[in-house]
Amino acid sequence: MHRHVDELIRAGRRFDARGWVLGTSGNFSAVIARDPLRLAITRSGTHKGELGADDFLELDAGGRVVAGDGRPSAETALHTAIVAARGAGAVLHTHSIWSTFLSDRYPGGFEIGGYEMLKGLAGVTTHEHREWIPVIGNDQDMERLSVEVRGTLDAHPACHGFLLLRHGLYTWGATLADAVRHVEILEFLMESVGRARYSAPIPEEAAPWRS
Amino acid sequence: MHRHVDELIRAGRRFDARGWVLGTSGNFSAVIARDPLRLAITRSGTHKGELGADDFLELDAGGRVVAGDGRPSAETALHTAIVAARGAGAVLHTHSIWSTFLSDRYPGGFEIGGYEMLKGLAGVTTHEHREWIPVIGNDQDMERLSVEVRGTLDAHPACHGFLLLRHGLYTWGATLADAVRHVEILEFLMESVGRARYSAPIPEEAAPWRS
Amino acid sequence: MHRHVDELIRAGRRFDARGWVLGTSGNFSAVIARDPLRLAITRSGTHKGELGADDFLELDAGGRVVAGDGRPSAETALHTAIVAARGAGAVLHTHSIWSTFLSDRYPGGFEIGGYEMLKGLAGVTTHEHREWIPVIGNDQDMERLSVEVRGTLDAHPACHGFLLLRHGLYTWGATLADAVRHVEILEFLMESVGRARYSAPIPEEAAPWRS
Amino acid sequence: MHRHVDELIRAGRRFDARGWVLGTSGNFSAVIARDPLRLAITRSGTHKGELGADDFLELDAGGRVVAGDGRPSAETALHTAIVAARGAGAVLHTHSIWSTFLSDRYPGGFEIGGYEMLKGLAGVTTHEHREWIPVIGNDQDMERLSVEVRGTLDAHPACHGFLLLRHGLYTWGATLADAVRHVEILEFLMESVGRARYSAPIPEEAAPWRS
Repeated sequence: MHRHVDELIRAGRRFDARGWVLGTSGNFSAVIARDPLRLAITRSGTHKGELGADDFLELDAGGRVVAGDGRPSAETALHTAIVAARGAGAVLHTHSIWSTFLSDRYPGGFEIGGYEMLKGLAGVTTHEHREWIPVIGNDQDMERLSVEVRGTLDAHPACHGFLLLRHGLYTWGATLADAVRHVEILEFLMESVGRARYSAPIPEEAAPWRS
Repeated sequence: MHRHVDELIRAGRRFDARGWVLGTSGNFSAVIARDPLRLAITRSGTHKGELGADDFLELDAGGRVVAGDGRPSAETALHTAIVAARGAGAVLHTHSIWSTFLSDRYPGGFEIGGYEMLKGLAGVTTHEHREWIPVIGNDQDMERLSVEVRGTLDAHPACHGFLLLRHGLYTWGATLADAVRHVEILEFLMESVGRARYSAPIPEEAAPWRS
Repeated sequence: MHRHVDELIRAGRRFDARGWVLGTSGNFSAVIARDPLRLAITRSGTHKGELGADDFLELDAGGRVVAGDGRPSAETALHTAIVAARGAGAVLHTHSIWSTFLSDRYPGGFEIGGYEMLKGLAGVTTHEHREWIPVIGNDQDMERLSVEVRGTLDAHPACHGFLLLRHGLYTWGATLADAVRHVEILEFLMESVGRARYSAPIPEEAAPWRS
Repeated sequence: MHRHVDELIRAGRRFDARGWVLGTSGNFSAVIARDPLRLAITRSGTHKGELGADDFLELDAGGRVVAGDGRPSAETALHTAIVAARGAGAVLHTHSIWSTFLSDRYPGGFEIGGYEMLKGLAGVTTHEHREWIPVIGNDQDMERLSVEVRGTLDAHPACHGFLLLRHGLYTWGATLADAVRHVEILEFLMESVGRARYSAPIPEEAAPWRS
């Protein structure tokens, strides 16, 4: 568990510096064994920029705590659903300004195409790739929400992440390094798309451009 | 006093990194004893990102200095009013761009609803919560302003913070950790609301979207 | 000289973290003796976020190097003009996005009023203060520009800083700590004013607000 | 190689702090010998904010690895083309929000004029300088893209950098310090130009200015 936990602590500090895990928001998990499945996941109520080794629990495939003290993240069922559906080695959930902004503008989902940064998503080899970002309605019923998540993952087998409406980003990867990279890539793309579509030009009469 | 002071110093560094306590703005307090009340509060004129242990004073319930050198924050009366009205264990006051922006747009107050991050506020269990953020007119007369603050706290018994117009945020919590989390949560929500309501879309004719 | 230099190095790191001294932009000075005048000033071509003790020169009242190696900042004449006109103990010049933005919108200068943060300017005791920020046309002729600067300082005896058009901020203080605080206060106020005046609301039909 | 590698590692950390090399984006090179040419370049797939000495390869003029393990950056041909065309001592490629934004708005290129920060570009001595920033269409065929790059460098012999459409910035310098400064200067200028041209004023009726 140690190696994964060290990397998750480090990722938490990086994400905190960028303002993607404010308050005690976000939760992180990494697969530490496959057969049977063992998942390291952040304890509920921790600040993700100030994680210590004690802030992780070890779960089985059913989400039961097999090591560590405390309550696992309330969204554990989403993590295990993603691991099962995608064979992911790590699942990361963050809360950023731009993912919140876009989820609100595109409650049905949106496409990102034409950006070089798309190549940072596993398996993508050209900027001509078109990535669909599903947006799922937010729900406090985790049972119901994980059904929605599984349906979305089935309906969009190529997607690398999804948003919960006015809530945040879920992404994952075969390895933890892949998942961390996906957070950074998707956040960059979302800020790019947000600014590209929502930056109105200054009218000539208001402040004529004098360059 | 030591434990609280260490945590306040740490919170100051975090807030400074985000630009929420520029200049010598902001002030922090924490209850160190209840009966009789003893409050640790930042000295006036200190930079909140570079606090040392000597930058805190100990006050009684009437705001009189009982330990430490220097003048307590000019806004001490607001801290003691909040501690009295809410039974708070800590009160934090910060100055951010987005709280200033929104206070100006909504001089009577505004509602934030539908965001997952609302669950970071003590006692809130669903994103469907509607949080009213009162905005109080700014005033240099602390006696008069603390009357206004007490009236606002009475009128909005469920609120977790309020803004002073073109001035900044006051929030609090049962513990210092709760108050720190409330600053981060409310700042995230205010930037989200500010960008959601004040980001005009780019017109088709000005720069057609070509994705 | 050591104490001032250490504080200037520290200020440079703070300003660099905020993006106010990118490239090798900006220059800093502090009065180390009054009679005769001795001024410590940054060497030309240094990165202000990575200053060392060797990056400072000692000048006399006429701007001649009396200690240290290298060429003083090209804008030395502006520093000595400000020290002479205001009796300043330190002069700081930074280049930020928002000072550049506002200088361009208000080439004749602009007023900032009604913000609590104004109280961070020396001698200001109320948010009702109205601070005029003169904007001076940029010029590569330092002789001519320092005449303009002296004229502006005479015409606006109460101002705490001024902008050079599409160039940056000059501010100062009786002490170096005052000057550092003035940079932070004025930058906060300029971002606040810039966002307040240049954030168009999203039209109802483009993305109806659903909170 | 050591001195250059240490400086590149340091530059990577600076750029990462500003969000200009998210994911594993960007690539850096520096000339370590001229005759025959030896180029240190970042290994493919590394995070530029967390580079170690092992993350650099040594190449010859034809882009063949002569020392180090791993695959060189996929964009090696652009680095060698720039070194050959400009006699550069270092080439830096970064991915920022504002370069992406402007490349999209001005797919044919754009001019930046009138800013003091232009003087941070090698050889520029006045803010009246007009810098043309060519924007080149993005392409995954590096052979074809390096032909485009060479054509652009020939057509714009005075330019200090260029953008790839929705991709990022390439800049260079006689020394590595020059190239690092050019990244910071061009990023500052691009954010300034982006905000100057795409910040619509708030209409009077929506939120009357009350200062």
